[in-house]
Amino acid sequence: MANQYVDMDSLKYLLYDIHGFEDVLNQEHFADYDREAVDMFLTSVKDFSDQKLYPTFQDMDKHAARFEDGKIIVPPVVETVMKEGGELGLISACFSFEDGGLQMPLTAMTAAYYIMDAANNHLPGYLGLTQGAAELIVEFGSEELKAKYTPKMLTGDWAGTMCLTEPQAGSSLSDITTSATPSDDGSYKIKGQKIFISGGDHEYVDNVVHLVLARIDGAPAGTKGISLFVVPKNKIQDDASLTSNDVITAGDFQKMGQKGYCTTHLIFGEQDDCQGWLVGEPNQGLKYMFLMMNGARIAVGRGGAGICTAAYYASLEYAKERPQGRRLSAKGTKDVNQEQTLIINHPDVRRMLLLQKAISEGSLSLVTLTSIYADLYQTVTDPEEKEKYYLLLELLTPICKTYPSEDGMRSINNGLQVLGGYGFCSEYILQQYYRDIRIFSIYEGTTGIQSLDLLGRKVAMKGGKALMLLANEMKETMKDASTYDDLKPYAAKLGAKLQLTQDVLGHLSQFAMKGDYERYIADATIFMEFFSKVVISWLWLQMATHSKHALVTANMDYSEEFYNAKIHTMKFYFKYELSRTSSLAEILKDQDVLTIPNEEEVFA
Amino acid sequence: MANQYVDMDSLKYLLYDIHGFEDVLNQEHFADYDREAVDMFLTSVKDFSDQKLYPTFQDMDKHAARFEDGKIIVPPVVETVMKEGGELGLISACFSFEDGGLQMPLTAMTAAYYIMDAANNHLPGYLGLTQGAAELIVEFGSEELKAKYTPKMLTGDWAGTMCLTEPQAGSSLSDITTSATPSDDGSYKIKGQKIFISGGDHEYVDNVVHLVLARIDGAPAGTKGISLFVVPKNKIQDDASLTSNDVITAGDFQKMGQKGYCTTHLIFGEQDDCQGWLVGEPNQGLKYMFLMMNGARIAVGRGGAGICTAAYYASLEYAKERPQGRRLSAKGTKDVNQEQTLIINHPDVRRMLLLQKAISEGSLSLVTLTSIYADLYQTVTDPEEKEKYYLLLELLTPICKTYPSEDGMRSINNGLQVLGGYGFCSEYILQQYYRDIRIFSIYEGTTGIQSLDLLGRKVAMKGGKALMLLANEMKETMKDASTYDDLKPYAAKLGAKLQLTQDVLGHLSQFAMKGDYERYIADATIFMEFFSKVVISWLWLQMATHSKHALVTANMDYSEEFYNAKIHTMKFYFKYELSRTSSLAEILKDQDVLTIPNEEEVFA
Repeated sequence: MANQYVDMDSLKYLLYDIHGFEDVLNQEHFADYDREAVDMFLTSVKDFSDQKLYPTFQDMDKHAARFEDGKIIVPPVVETVMKEGGELGLISACFSFEDGGLQMPLTAMTAAYYIMDAANNHLPGYLGLTQGAAELIVEFGSEELKAKYTPKMLTGDWAGTMCLTEPQAGSSLSDITTSATPSDDGSYKIKGQKIFISGGDHEYVDNVVHLVLARIDGAPAGTKGISLFVVPKNKIQDDASLTSNDVITAGDFQKMGQKGYCTTHLIFGEQDDCQGWLVGEPNQGLKYMFLMMNGARIAVGRGGAGICTAAYYASLEYAKERPQGRRLSAKGTKDVNQEQTLIINHPDVRRMLLLQKAISEGSLSLVTLTSIYADLYQTVTDPEEKEKYYLLLELLTPICKTYPSEDGMRSINNGLQVLGGYGFCSEYILQQYYRDIRIFSIYEGTTGIQSLDLLGRKVAMKGGKALMLLANEMKETMKDASTYDDLKPYAAKLGAKLQLTQDVLGHLSQFAMKGDYERYIADATIFMEFFSKVVISWLWLQMATHSKHALVTANMDYSEEFYNAKIHTMKFYFKYELSRTSSLAEILKDQDVLTIPNEEEVFA
Repeated sequence: MANQYVDMDSLKYLLYDIHGFEDVLNQEHFADYDREAVDMFLTSVKDFSDQKLYPTFQDMDKHAARFEDGKIIVPPVVETVMKEGGELGLISACFSFEDGGLQMPLTAMTAAYYIMDAANNHLPGYLGLTQGAAELIVEFGSEELKAKYTPKMLTGDWAGTMCLTEPQAGSSLSDITTSATPSDDGSYKIKGQKIFISGGDHEYVDNVVHLVLARIDGAPAGTKGISLFVVPKNKIQDDASLTSNDVITAGDFQKMGQKGYCTTHLIFGEQDDCQGWLVGEPNQGLKYMFLMMNGARIAVGRGGAGICTAAYYASLEYAKERPQGRRLSAKGTKDVNQEQTLIINHPDVRRMLLLQKAISEGSLSLVTLTSIYADLYQTVTDPEEKEKYYLLLELLTPICKTYPSEDGMRSINNGLQVLGGYGFCSEYILQQYYRDIRIFSIYEGTTGIQSLDLLGRKVAMKGGKALMLLANEMKETMKDASTYDDLKPYAAKLGAKLQLTQDVLGHLSQFAMKGDYERYIADATIFMEFFSKVVISWLWLQMATHSKHALVTANMDYSEEFYNAKIHTMKFYFKYELSRTSSLAEILKDQDVLTIPNEEEVFA
């Protein structure tokens, strides 16, 4: 294993120097926190990760979660994580004081979980889903439900899950069939099956509180008839003791990665004895779920960023230690009598490492900024400001979910290549990162679905206002960058790409206006690939501009190398990644219609 | 498991209709073969693959090759493959009659192995390396060595390996240190360690004949002092019995994929009792090895093409059976009262499947053509023709090795995504293809090394003659395509990309001419990405033009759908893949120098 999996300086640089996290801390709601308090929290999470999470990472891959004798077996570190993570406030962090929480910003929790994701991505989900399930109850449930379930969830004594997917419906939630039949006592009888339930069952908590989407008998078809229920694994009796609630674990999906994080198949009400309690109003379940979804999607992006960061440091360490071959002389010859050089000195290896650095820090920047927008949206009071952060949050969320997952894979793929044959060997950690990250582009809505969301909903939101607000932010950065002669060309490049974005959208919107919506949206995934590179370029230009300013003014919190490396990596991203948007725009503007089914049989 | 892993029609279409394999069969050297004979051979290999290889594919992943009590344990199907594969002629196919072979074209063997790669990529290497090792002996060894070793290798009673890599040297063969000390009897004492030796040891053959690169005492430093030796696991005694030759198996590398194909660590001469016999002349070992390398590199590309073909059919089968969601109406709405549609009808899924089809058939076309060039180079007698095929072979080989490996990964990555969450589950086969193919961009010279070969050697060969010859072939296709109005725009696009290739090379060659070779070559991998897409586009335009001709003349050996699908896929490749070369050219022409090490510390 590598010695380093995360760089705390780069994380804090993004939080405070680049994205002005102090603006969030200055909000009344977060009055109990300042930079020092947050840094202390992050240090304790880093210590916890160093001591408990990172050392078990390879082991969790070797001893996968599994289903045996009707039970899910997970490694004992899950108990540590639930208990000590609960004590550290990793479940309760963002709840208000009144709800038993620490009233901390989401951004602080995102930073903390990012460290844990980098240390051991199999574990944070156990805490994160418990937090998410409790959040749904707190946000939309009755006082009774809140009182009954959330205290033990916030401490980690009980776990929580989200139960959406059913075998026959997959991503198409309008087709779920789990049923809820009203009982006289105000509860519902739940009946149905849910699959791919992360953290769905294990022996290290006394109860698992499932938040289940189901249809009340007679509810309208489609998404309009879906309600949300609390369905505990064990019912709470009047004397507070627990008794089985007819929630059966039917299996654990075996996977190519993230093996220590169980993925269960649950059956509700096989004995007709599964009780559920409605959260909020009937038929509003999907709305509630989606109000929480931004958080879940930021969490997936954060996970992708964490894993590809850890992979970057592992590749870097190898490249700095491994001698092989010699540098080419200017004339293209090599002197075999010289010592071998370290592979980090080969341009192709350097290119791969810079790609890893650029993608992992770019991803972290995006995740951090999106979290900050979420915090500001929650806490600012001025309605215009609130709308601004709402729109920016909505626009960035699908990108924040997708970019770190998709380009995170590319990044780790390059990182594995740095190690040559060793990269493919189980003994080295790169191959585990390579396998683990593969699920992130599927979790919480696949890349295809995020892309439909981005191009189909977000870009057009409020007549394009979200996009305009983001463009304004970008222009601000370009203006700052242009004050430095050597950054000016990069600002101009970004400006041109912003213009190209308008061109592309102008081209596509013709189809939407003609009513050919299927064509408008057909290449949404290509648009995602295009636009996310524009956004990440902007974030790198922010870093380069700030670094330049620090160097010029000699007002430096970090080393000169630190700032120079940011500027260098910005240039790298512009040359090797932003350039790729020219072609993506070509694809988006191409007139051939090739992926919309017609009479022609392409797959005979 | 999917029902189909390969399409014999597409294979034969490429062989006969597109690449004119009959021109090879018409060579005197192959007088014993005609289309019927080759087809019978391929049918028997397909049957063998259906019955013995494909059914054990998932199992080999679950029961990895391993090292136990000093022995390598592999699944028993390896015995079947060596014996029955030997009987089928899968080792001896390409050897001349005089050397005990079947005197078959490489192209026929490539097609046969492609079927096996698609069926079960863990197995063909056991046969292929035995073939390669025997080929080195036949080509460069003495009559005595040939007589002693090759007969039993050609039947599969004995196996063969190639021993290049050493722990401290990796890809840098100039740094190997395995030593060879002359003995009085004309043999050499061999001492050293080799790692990553595929098929290096197992119980299902009586002997393993290692072809080992080593340095004779006092040999010059670097690649000029490397010799090639036959080093059998067991020595042959005068009475033909076998006795140990002090070749110790020290371990088996555990890997993330291709787990059934053992990857051994061998120690030669630990007891000072390991005998080796020189092949050919001293200090010529690397030259011999590299004369065989084209074949090995075509084989890697072929493997990549095979795996991504199998993955394509697995994704396609799923997409044709899995209902989920509904098509968007023109207005962008969905009617939940309608039945769910099959996912193949969603444009994004269709895009991913078309990408898989385009990459896997494009790869197969490249592999087939490269093999044909190899056959023609071996057999034509006219010196000018011979040079032409030699140059085309040399130019295409690094691309043939790299494109199916690299874009094969992208293809399978998309194929896994087609299955959503199931794609990540061990129960479904996509994740195995995803893991297995990952080694192909590392085998036999990584992508980085192939790219240095392409841009550093091949493009400049004989003053650029290889490239000119290839451009002529492309222009021929463009001319043919231009006779059809609807193909004309694609021919023009390809022409423009050929021009762009010249521009890019013109730009880069400035640096070579100025003597800044390191800069000339720094982005070789980007050039590989660029140029391979141009080449594959050409190959698709060939298919589209031929298909168009068949449709127009109603001279059809296959269905109308078959030909229409080829034309459709060509258009898809041009829109979604060839377009990407614009950006790659931008990168190659960019003035920023960011990956050549200088004083600046980027990775502090």
